[in-house]
Amino acid sequence: MKKLKRSARLVEMTQYLLIRPHTLIPLTTFADRYNSAKSSISEDLAIIKEVFEAEGLGDLQTLAGAAGGVKFIPRVPKEASLRFVDGICRQLEQPERVLPGGYLYMSDIIGQPLVLNEVGKTFASAFAGKDIDCVITVETKGIPIAYATASYLNLPVVIVRRDNKVTEGSVVSINYVSGSNKRIQTMSLARRALKEESKVLIVDDFMRVGGTIHGMIDLLAEFKATVKGVGVFVESGEVEEHLVEDYISLAKLSGVDAKTRQVTVVPGNYFN
Amino acid sequence: MKKLKRSARLVEMTQYLLIRPHTLIPLTTFADRYNSAKSSISEDLAIIKEVFEAEGLGDLQTLAGAAGGVKFIPRVPKEASLRFVDGICRQLEQPERVLPGGYLYMSDIIGQPLVLNEVGKTFASAFAGKDIDCVITVETKGIPIAYATASYLNLPVVIVRRDNKVTEGSVVSINYVSGSNKRIQTMSLARRALKEESKVLIVDDFMRVGGTIHGMIDLLAEFKATVKGVGVFVESGEVEEHLVEDYISLAKLSGVDAKTRQVTVVPGNYFN
Repeated sequence: MKKLKRSARLVEMTQYLLIRPHTLIPLTTFADRYNSAKSSISEDLAIIKEVFEAEGLGDLQTLAGAAGGVKFIPRVPKEASLRFVDGICRQLEQPERVLPGGYLYMSDIIGQPLVLNEVGKTFASAFAGKDIDCVITVETKGIPIAYATASYLNLPVVIVRRDNKVTEGSVVSINYVSGSNKRIQTMSLARRALKEESKVLIVDDFMRVGGTIHGMIDLLAEFKATVKGVGVFVESGEVEEHLVEDYISLAKLSGVDAKTRQVTVVPGNYFN
Repeated sequence: MKKLKRSARLVEMTQYLLIRPHTLIPLTTFADRYNSAKSSISEDLAIIKEVFEAEGLGDLQTLAGAAGGVKFIPRVPKEASLRFVDGICRQLEQPERVLPGGYLYMSDIIGQPLVLNEVGKTFASAFAGKDIDCVITVETKGIPIAYATASYLNLPVVIVRRDNKVTEGSVVSINYVSGSNKRIQTMSLARRALKEESKVLIVDDFMRVGGTIHGMIDLLAEFKATVKGVGVFVESGEVEEHLVEDYISLAKLSGVDAKTRQVTVVPGNYFN
């Protein structure tokens, strides 16, 4: 690549780092790419680091030495996440979201890429310090949240299926009791989808009693996996006791009145 | 915000634009944000535009006048997409992917955020000129591809379900014949998930005969929707005639021999 001016280099490096979170980039990569001295690259990185921190985008970690380089760790300040979640709570409280059975319609909210980006960044910030191999979820509505989180952590996604598709090869299936309606259900994961002894982060859109997540934990035990964290977008606060104890929620549904259509949603335990 | 130097402003504006594709940003937004003259902002944008074009990230469109501003349109050059797809083809040809029935295991590939980013950028480039309201897919494996595409187009995602979930309110269901195994199947879409007369882009991971996508088109007719495009990640080339004629594919499976485990995958019709 031809030699770039500092201004162009800054634009280039910013986009390069943003699309490669949690990836160690040797300084020589940039030096070669822009045909520039390492000292100039270091000065550029100092400018980028300052802006990323001031903007609440995350940290730019510099590792010295031969195996060194720079790594972008997305990390949103809790106050910023809370402002975002407050807005989501107000949206979830709209009376027209209340469905028969006291369910709440939220597919449209999860359908917005900008919302997913914020959810993904928040989970990626909450679990950034953990040593995780992949993000796992169960179909269907948890999938976009899992991908948003995984893209900020630079990790692959593994999807647990509610059926047993022929196109996945040999699968491990378990039965579990859905906490909400006490029905026995099945979930399956392809043998080849997850290496044994993986360290996983479980993500889902909604947790009532926690039956589905508890089922996933049982299924993961069949793969000798270690659960390093559980993140749910919205939890139900109407439950006395959860089957899952250690989890992070971004919002909490503290009451749905199907008759008056009054809904109360507050920030989740991540903000406690 | 305090007045920023040009170098910091460039980093800031680059990240601001990248996370807001297809969004018109008035120059005054930047001028106010950085407490800078519009003329300085225009100079910054010219630098960013040059780098974005040189890097194959996309166009920075400037609209003059009172309602004017700047808009980032992600657009990857076809040669870059082709280099990426060539790599995917080689991965798909690995013999261990062949499953009983001549299916091909590709969940691990779709599970990689970096792969999804490229797929999403490519579809977003292919359909950037169309006037689209939302991206639509059917669960399960099309979902991540739909979100990746939607995030580069700044559009919401709508998911067609293969069952009829109580948590979605009233739904429209249709029966369709899956082309691959001739079974009658059901797909459903919540009434409130899609406004009538929407202009939609259909996205899916795999198309054999096209029965599923044909079913989606039938279902969308119930919502008076207009299909503005169809994009599939991989199409099967073993089919004489597709039920869907107008589509873009990124890769084409031209032969799977379940016995010898030999697979041939070539770039799709997008590159013709």
